[in-house]
Amino acid sequence: MSAPLDFWFDFASPYGYLASTQIDDIAARHGRSVRWRPILLGAVFKVSGMKPVMDQPLRGEYLVHDAPRFARLLGVPLTMPAKVPLNGLAACRAFWWLEPSDPAKAHALAKAIYHAHWGEGRDVAAAEQVAEVAAPLGIPAADLLAGVQEQMVKDRLRAETDEAIRRGVFGAPFIHVDGEAFWGADRLDQVEEWLARGGW
Amino acid sequence: MSAPLDFWFDFASPYGYLASTQIDDIAARHGRSVRWRPILLGAVFKVSGMKPVMDQPLRGEYLVHDAPRFARLLGVPLTMPAKVPLNGLAACRAFWWLEPSDPAKAHALAKAIYHAHWGEGRDVAAAEQVAEVAAPLGIPAADLLAGVQEQMVKDRLRAETDEAIRRGVFGAPFIHVDGEAFWGADRLDQVEEWLARGGW
Repeated sequence: MSAPLDFWFDFASPYGYLASTQIDDIAARHGRSVRWRPILLGAVFKVSGMKPVMDQPLRGEYLVHDAPRFARLLGVPLTMPAKVPLNGLAACRAFWWLEPSDPAKAHALAKAIYHAHWGEGRDVAAAEQVAEVAAPLGIPAADLLAGVQEQMVKDRLRAETDEAIRRGVFGAPFIHVDGEAFWGADRLDQVEEWLARGGW
Repeated sequence: MSAPLDFWFDFASPYGYLASTQIDDIAARHGRSVRWRPILLGAVFKVSGMKPVMDQPLRGEYLVHDAPRFARLLGVPLTMPAKVPLNGLAACRAFWWLEPSDPAKAHALAKAIYHAHWGEGRDVAAAEQVAEVAAPLGIPAADLLAGVQEQMVKDRLRAETDEAIRRGVFGAPFIHVDGEAFWGADRLDQVEEWLARGGW
């Protein structure tokens, strides 16, 4: 079994959500695992000079039509949240608080947050809202609310975002496969092709 | 036979080039034709607030690696031109000069320009360079050089670009299939799916 794929994403991105519903299966078909790495694209945009897609004229309108259409093609639920773009700070911190001690549960939490926000259209900006999503996974709300305030957790998220920038991440989802970078949910077929053929 | 697909593109876009090598075949497989509509994305960017991809930090570096990789996957040649981004003004005007009287030749010219610029890495910014590419198609250089100066041709390019903006085009390639918009060479599979199923 070779190195895991790196799956960089921002909870605010519907395309990150769409990719999140596929990436584990794609990797598994080729005997690979996936490191889920939530980051804040806002910090990336400061470097790249880009704006959130939904704040861009024309492109934002396209997204509102395209993301649900893409979801229908994949057969996954998508509900445009009333409030976008999401500030994913608390969600990211909750993930990086859980990840060192229980990576499997952190992964389940990321899936649950994505499903709540993009599958059901719920707001998950506040730490309390993230805690509500986490509760069914057996994560005590008080622990999570304290965890997202830990300096070590804040530092970890910053370090992850810095590493993403260093490795050229400029949007989400962004996937590294053995050093090769692929941007966008619409490149999952190329990710799979790369895994199947070991490059081309 | 239903309405033709609209294929909006800028000669400066390598992804437009990649799509241009596939779009006619995709449409033909479903009994459809394609209207090639070269435009200047610079005018679009003024509306959308975006910058040319190659001028964006991180994203520009990704493109230089990604576009040739994508081309290898498709089995088409791609040579990064020494001078980017191309100013496609003369190329667009040459197309729109030819198109009313000989759409087939205009189509062949667009393919030849794309091949010269992205297949072979040649500069095609100057009208004289476009005329060189056009010569093997039996297009007299003097006619082309006069044609690109015609007011009607300038107006047509402006009208096409305006229509693109009106119809939500914010990047290239951009494809309209029966009113549905698809952005990017990496969405050609969805374009084909839409044609095959008549939507989803």
